[in-house]
Amino acid sequence: MIRRTSQDIRRLNRFEVLRRVYAGPGAMSRQDVAAATGLSFATVANLTAELLEAGVLVEAGHEESGGGRPRARLAVNAERGALIGVDIAETSVHAELFDLALTVRHSVERPLPPGDVRPSDVVDALAGAVGELLAASGTDRARVLGAGVSVPGMVEREGGVSSFSPYWSWHEVPLRALLDERLGLPLWLDNPLRASTVAEMWCGAGREVDDLVVLTLRAGVGAGIAIGGQLYRGFTNSAGEWGHTCLALDGRPCTCGNRGCVEAYVSLRGIAETWRELAPGDARATGPDDAVTVAALARAADAGDPAAAAAIDRTGRYLGAAVANLVNLVNPQVVVVGNQVVDLLGERLLPVAYEAVGRHALALPHRAATLCRSTVPHNPVTLGAATFALEGFLDDREVFGPVSRMRKAAKGGAGAGG
Amino acid sequence: MIRRTSQDIRRLNRFEVLRRVYAGPGAMSRQDVAAATGLSFATVANLTAELLEAGVLVEAGHEESGGGRPRARLAVNAERGALIGVDIAETSVHAELFDLALTVRHSVERPLPPGDVRPSDVVDALAGAVGELLAASGTDRARVLGAGVSVPGMVEREGGVSSFSPYWSWHEVPLRALLDERLGLPLWLDNPLRASTVAEMWCGAGREVDDLVVLTLRAGVGAGIAIGGQLYRGFTNSAGEWGHTCLALDGRPCTCGNRGCVEAYVSLRGIAETWRELAPGDARATGPDDAVTVAALARAADAGDPAAAAAIDRTGRYLGAAVANLVNLVNPQVVVVGNQVVDLLGERLLPVAYEAVGRHALALPHRAATLCRSTVPHNPVTLGAATFALEGFLDDREVFGPVSRMRKAAKGGAGAGG
Ligand SMILES: [Zn+2]
Ligand SMILES: [Zn+2]
Repeated sequence: MIRRTSQDIRRLNRFEVLRRVYAGPGAMSRQDVAAATGLSFATVANLTAELLEAGVLVEAGHEESGGGRPRARLAVNAERGALIGVDIAETSVHAELFDLALTVRHSVERPLPPGDVRPSDVVDALAGAVGELLAASGTDRARVLGAGVSVPGMVEREGGVSSFSPYWSWHEVPLRALLDERLGLPLWLDNPLRASTVAEMWCGAGREVDDLVVLTLRAGVGAGIAIGGQLYRGFTNSAGEWGHTCLALDGRPCTCGNRGCVEAYVSLRGIAETWRELAPGDARATGPDDAVTVAALARAADAGDPAAAAAIDRTGRYLGAAVANLVNLVNPQVVVVGNQVVDLLGERLLPVAYEAVGRHALALPHRAATLCRSTVPHNPVTLGAATFALEGFLDDREVFGPVSRMRKAAKGGAGAGG
Repeated sequence: MIRRTSQDIRRLNRFEVLRRVYAGPGAMSRQDVAAATGLSFATVANLTAELLEAGVLVEAGHEESGGGRPRARLAVNAERGALIGVDIAETSVHAELFDLALTVRHSVERPLPPGDVRPSDVVDALAGAVGELLAASGTDRARVLGAGVSVPGMVEREGGVSSFSPYWSWHEVPLRALLDERLGLPLWLDNPLRASTVAEMWCGAGREVDDLVVLTLRAGVGAGIAIGGQLYRGFTNSAGEWGHTCLALDGRPCTCGNRGCVEAYVSLRGIAETWRELAPGDARATGPDDAVTVAALARAADAGDPAAAAAIDRTGRYLGAAVANLVNLVNPQVVVVGNQVVDLLGERLLPVAYEAVGRHALALPHRAATLCRSTVPHNPVTLGAATFALEGFLDDREVFGPVSRMRKAAKGGAGAGG
C-alpha cells in the first residue's frame, strides 16, 4: 500500500531541506533552499522554523539581498549532538564518532578474529569500539543522538535480524536485540550498500541527484540505488544485489553458490583470482588476504609487470560490462564507484572500465550517465551509517511532527511560520 | 530537482483513487477507496468530488453499511469519452478504441511494408488505422479524449522525437510533429515497455503492487519498472533496457552491436537461433519470420521433437537467469511476463524459467517475488498506450486542478467536499 500522507510528505521535505543545507556551498538562505528544492518559500520557512526550534539548524549571520531585507543564513548546528557510524566488515569493526554536521571527530578500528566469526565476537568488538570512541572523545552517552550500524549481507531494519551473511555462517541472528542491550543507544541497522548510498546523497556525488547508483567494490560487491532523491530498498529491503547478477552465464563460481556473478570478477577475491589465472606461478597472487593481494597487484602493475597490468585490464572490462548493465537498466544520472577496489586500483582500473561501459551501454543512457569516483572524504559506510542515525533522529516524533506540535500548542509556544 | 508540490501530490492521489476504482472487484464506496489507498476519507471525498464533476466517475447505487447511512457506490463512467491506443510493432500497426472503462470497443491492424520501414509508412498506416477505428465504430473525433502511441525503441515523451529504433534506420524522427498534423488528437508517445507496465498497473497483475517489473518478450525484449506505485522512467526516459544487459559475456551477437545480451537469447529471433543451433538441418527453423518460426517450434515440441523441446528448455534457462538478475537487483514484489514469446511458448517455457530463477536468485528476494503471466486480457501495449491517454486527460488542468477550480469559483459552483 502506498502511503502518501501529509506526514510522509512533511518528513521527506524535512530531509530535503536539511540535505540542501548540508550540500550547500556554505550557509544558505531560506530563498536558496527554496530554489534548490523546488519547494515553496512558505514550506521552507515552516520546516526551517521546526529545525531551528529543534536546534538542528542555527542562523549564522545574514547576507545582503540587493536592497531588500537581509536574508538570514542557515547552518547546521554541529554541536547539537553526536552520531555514531559503525561498519562491520569482513575482518574488522570500524566505528566513528561524528558531530551533527557529519564531520568525523574520532575513529576506532577493532579486528575480528579470523575464520567464521560468531555474532558475540561482533557484538563484543562493536560495544568495545563504541565505548572507546566515547571515552577517548570525552563524549557523554546521553549526547549521542543515535548509532547506525552497517551489517554485511541482508538485515531486517525493524526487527534487526541478520538473515544472510556473505562471510559467516549466521542464521537468523537477532542483532538488534544483542546490540540494544550492550549499547543503550537509539540503533539503526542496514547494509553497506545502502549506507554508502545515503552517504553520497548527503555528503557526496549524489547531493543534487535524483536517480543515483552507488557501487560498493570490496570483499562484497553491490549497488545502492536512489530514485527520485530517495533510497530505493525494494519490496523486502534487499534491492541492489548487483554483485550477484549473472554477467557470464556458466562462468566462474561465486561465494553465493552460483556461477558467473559480477562479484566473482570484481570483488577483491575475484580480482586476485584473475591475477592468478594470468600469472599462475606468481607467489604474490596467492596470499590468504585478498586486500593484501590486490595491493600487491597494484604495486606489480606500477612496476611494469605485464601480467599484473593485464589482470587490471581484464577486471576493467568485467567491471565496465557490469556497470553498463546498470546504465541500460536503471538509466541513472550518476554512477558513483568507490571503496577498497577503487582505492587500490582506481587510477589504472577506472579508465579501462569507463571505456568498456561506453562499448557495452546503449548510446542514450550512456550519454546521460556521469560516472565518477566517490567524493565522500572518509569511509562512506561509517558516514552512511551515521546518516541513518541522523535520519532516525529527524524522524523522532517527540522532537518533530505532531507530538512536538501538540506539546508546543499546549505550552502556547509558536511552532510554525518563518 | 525533486518536485513534491501539493499539485503533484494531488495529481498522484487522483490517479491512485481512480486506479483503485478500476481495480476494485465491482463498484467501490469512498470508504473502500480510502481503505485501499491509505488516504484519508476527506482526501478521497475531495478527489472523488472532482472526478464526479468531470464526469469520469458516476455514483452507481448504494450499499448498506450496517445501520449507518448507506454508502454510495462509485463506478467509472465508460461513456465519458473514448481513448485510442496504438502499438507500432515490427511488422504492423495495431490500433484499438477503448471506452473510459478501458474496455476495447474496436480493433484494427494494418501491416507495415517489409524491410526498412520509413517514418511516412508508419504515419500513413497509423492515421489510416485511426480513421478506420472512428468510422467503423461511429465515433466522433471530438469524443476522443486522447491517443496513446507506443513507439519501439527510444522516444522523447515531450518533443516526440524517436531517437533510436531497434528495427529501422530512423534518425531523430519528429514523430509527434508528423502525427499531430494527421491525427488532430491529444497525443501521448512512449515505448512498449512502459505501455505494458502501465497496463498492468491499471488493469493487470500490478494493480495493488508498489514495486513491479513487467517483462515484454517479443521481437524486442525489455523490462518496465514501477516503483512506489509509479512508473520509473530513469533520468532520460530510457530505463528498462534489460534486453541489452549482458547475460553471457562475449556471447551471441545482438542487434544492438554488443554480444551476449538477454535479447539475443530470449527474443523471438534469439529463440529461433537457439533452435537452429540444436537442429542444424531442420528447415522449420530457418524461415524469415521469427514469430512463425517460434510458433513452429511450439508445434514441434508438442509433437515430441526432442531438439525443439531442448531449444525451449535452453531458452527457459536463459530467461530464468536473466529474470533472477532483475529479482536480485530490483527486489520486486511482482514480476509479470508477457507478450508473443509467452503466448507461443508459455506452457513449456515458464516452468523451466521459474525453476531457473530459483536456482539463480538469492533466497530472500526470490521468496519475496511473485512471478506470473500477464493477466491483461488484450494486447497490453495498446491498452497501456490508451492508459497514457487516460493519464494525460487526468492531467488536463482545464478539467482538473487550479484552472478548473478557479473557473468553478468564478461561477460560484461547488468544487470540493464530499
Ligand atoms: Zn554470486
Ligand atoms: Zn543487445
